[in-house]
Amino acid sequence: MSQPIDIAVIGATGIVGETLVQILEERDFPVGNLHLLASSESAGSSVLFRNKNVRVREVDEFDFSKVKLAFFAAGPAITLSYAARAHAAGCSLVDLSGALPADQAPQVVPEANTDVLAGLKVPFQVCSPSPSATTLAVVLAPLLDLVDLQYVHVTASLAVSAQGREAVAELARQTTELLNMRPLEPTFFDRQMAFNLLAQVGTPDAHGHTLLEKRLVRELRQVLAKPSLKISATCVQAPVFFGDSFSVTLQSTNAVDLEQVNAALEDAEGIELVEAGDYPTAVGDAVGQDVVYVGRVRSGVDEPSELNLWLTSDNVRKGAALNAVQVAELLIKDLL
Amino acid sequence: MSQPIDIAVIGATGIVGETLVQILEERDFPVGNLHLLASSESAGSSVLFRNKNVRVREVDEFDFSKVKLAFFAAGPAITLSYAARAHAAGCSLVDLSGALPADQAPQVVPEANTDVLAGLKVPFQVCSPSPSATTLAVVLAPLLDLVDLQYVHVTASLAVSAQGREAVAELARQTTELLNMRPLEPTFFDRQMAFNLLAQVGTPDAHGHTLLEKRLVRELRQVLAKPSLKISATCVQAPVFFGDSFSVTLQSTNAVDLEQVNAALEDAEGIELVEAGDYPTAVGDAVGQDVVYVGRVRSGVDEPSELNLWLTSDNVRKGAALNAVQVAELLIKDLL
Ligand SMILES: NC(=O)c1ccc[n+]([C@@H]2O[C@H](COP(=O)([O-])OP(=O)(O)OC[C@H]3O[C@@H](n4cnc5c(N)ncnc54)[C@H](OP(=O)(O)O)[C@@H]3O)[C@@H](O)[C@H]2O)c1
Ligand SMILES: NC(=O)c1ccc[n+]([C@@H]2O[C@H](COP(=O)([O-])OP(=O)(O)OC[C@H]3O[C@@H](n4cnc5c(N)ncnc54)[C@H](OP(=O)(O)O)[C@@H]3O)[C@@H](O)[C@H]2O)c1
Repeated sequence: MSQPIDIAVIGATGIVGETLVQILEERDFPVGNLHLLASSESAGSSVLFRNKNVRVREVDEFDFSKVKLAFFAAGPAITLSYAARAHAAGCSLVDLSGALPADQAPQVVPEANTDVLAGLKVPFQVCSPSPSATTLAVVLAPLLDLVDLQYVHVTASLAVSAQGREAVAELARQTTELLNMRPLEPTFFDRQMAFNLLAQVGTPDAHGHTLLEKRLVRELRQVLAKPSLKISATCVQAPVFFGDSFSVTLQSTNAVDLEQVNAALEDAEGIELVEAGDYPTAVGDAVGQDVVYVGRVRSGVDEPSELNLWLTSDNVRKGAALNAVQVAELLIKDLL
Repeated sequence: MSQPIDIAVIGATGIVGETLVQILEERDFPVGNLHLLASSESAGSSVLFRNKNVRVREVDEFDFSKVKLAFFAAGPAITLSYAARAHAAGCSLVDLSGALPADQAPQVVPEANTDVLAGLKVPFQVCSPSPSATTLAVVLAPLLDLVDLQYVHVTASLAVSAQGREAVAELARQTTELLNMRPLEPTFFDRQMAFNLLAQVGTPDAHGHTLLEKRLVRELRQVLAKPSLKISATCVQAPVFFGDSFSVTLQSTNAVDLEQVNAALEDAEGIELVEAGDYPTAVGDAVGQDVVYVGRVRSGVDEPSELNLWLTSDNVRKGAALNAVQVAELLIKDLL
């Protein structure tokens, strides 16, 4: 085991932050002192780590020179406010908020593009991409040698937990109200989320694209090192608590060899391929797991150059916290 | 108003059949005697039509020479059992089950392909396509002159009512059990449907395609009179009671003119285009309505030849019962 490293988790009381702390413990990450940070709202509360309660403190008052590595999981505004301060104090960081520009911090998915880590120096800055880009990268990377990718079409059905704790609470509340025939009063979502699909996650830009859709396109291209790959992306909010699902259609120049595709997926790291004829679901398979589940591997109804896939992954774990910890594991070996 | 016509509805106690009877009344369809038919299970019950209770009888014992027109909404097996008998008795039929082969009965969507009706003779046989093909045809037909369609990619998130009454009851039951922390015992669905997405609706064939996906491709090509249009289709079961939603990506040879597309959708029959920036939902917009709702009209993130749309429609009404009645309205004018 490497030398213990002093670490900070910013956003430690959030859905991602709590899972991240849990994964550091599960994977026996060489943690020395652990600093858990959040806003004034939850400062004073505590989180269990290795059977001890660790007190949560305000990020505002934190001295980043106390740690060598920080995980940022408290939203883009917090990353933008504190990343420079951490850097100046010699603290490396893994960002989960999507706030840092690509030229400043590469997006990394260990199953797809560890090569970008080679050029990094301490204090480094790296990003864990959005759960959508992470999940797609894990599955598409092992197919790049087999499928001459022309176009990727993705409809991502995201769990409400993608939007944090409040969104999870609101889906539960709305569902209970509807089943009890009580009037619905949406608060977090601006309309009925229970038993419904919302076609837009976040505010669209002038061209109608949401930030999540633009991130999916940009981050996936970067991680796959295919800067001009054509990608159509629609991100939808589904009435699911945890676990994102992806309907994916790939277009290739040639007929796709399904046997080779299945073999490559079977062999790849970070993937669980379900049996032909079956399919994985968020709730039944992906949630709580460290792999992306893949099923419904098939060509087009009568188009052999088309490859269709159904993916599902735990957005909080595989899509975020676990990926960030995996990236950190690779970096500390060489750098910290 | 035309002469009253004696009519039979087979499957009159089902979700589609009941709505169909309601629509016949709403639209003042020239109904003479109305015969409501189902299985022995609900024979003897009654359904309200024009303020009178109409007794439901067994289809088994029905004499089709008593009616000039029959709507078949009781599943493919029933259509296959009784269509020939009806035809022999001089009874025309509109089938909603998807059972009849294309060369025997054309698929018709009034907003898209009324031209196929011209060749029909009494007793005619026509089909109302699957709700997915119907919805897509309504929206794509007015775009065919504007967009040089190369490929259509569809992820259809279907309401559980697509599978009839039992499926609706099971989603409600599963949701209640989960919210009350009781153990889940799936019966109709083979796994948890509440707060989950099932990637497959029905049993797939040896190539992994479900019947609904193959019907979507086949029927949409037929209705749009584009027999070699490339279509990728994934039909998913969403935890939504009523209303199907469609994430659609169209590929064109040229840059798509969004202004023209919006104008064409605005002008088209059977479509409600929502304001830019907004989006329609199944529960909030489509359910109970006679139009397909369209939103999120946008090109690709950086691909002007791509056109993305989000559609939602009432699967039982616009996707099935209303379409069938609209087809019948056109046919009785000339033929009955
Ligand atoms: N949820 C996902 O699936 C997912 C996946 C990938 C990435 N992410 C990203 O990860 C980040 C956290 O998401 P989440 O889902 O965990 O959200 P969340 O459950 O709402 O948690 C937010 C966390 O940020 C903290 N925070 C909020 N405002 C703060 C402030 N002004 N100063 C310091 N801390 C503050 C909160 O602390 P308090 O308890 O004090 O409020 C809490 O710990 C976001 O950037 C999100 O985009 C989320
Ligand atoms: N639901 C949709 O969104 C939708 C849309 C388009 C097309 N369709 C098609 O429409 C048909 C009906 O669907 P649904 O959703 O209305 O199903 P449903 O709610 O389950 O109703 C089925 C109907 O068929 C009748 N039926 C069943 N077995 C019968 C038998 N052996 N003899 C005579 N009648 C029988 C039932 O009568 P009992 O009451 O006696 O059982 C009931 O009236 C199916 O072919 C379906 O694929 C459905």
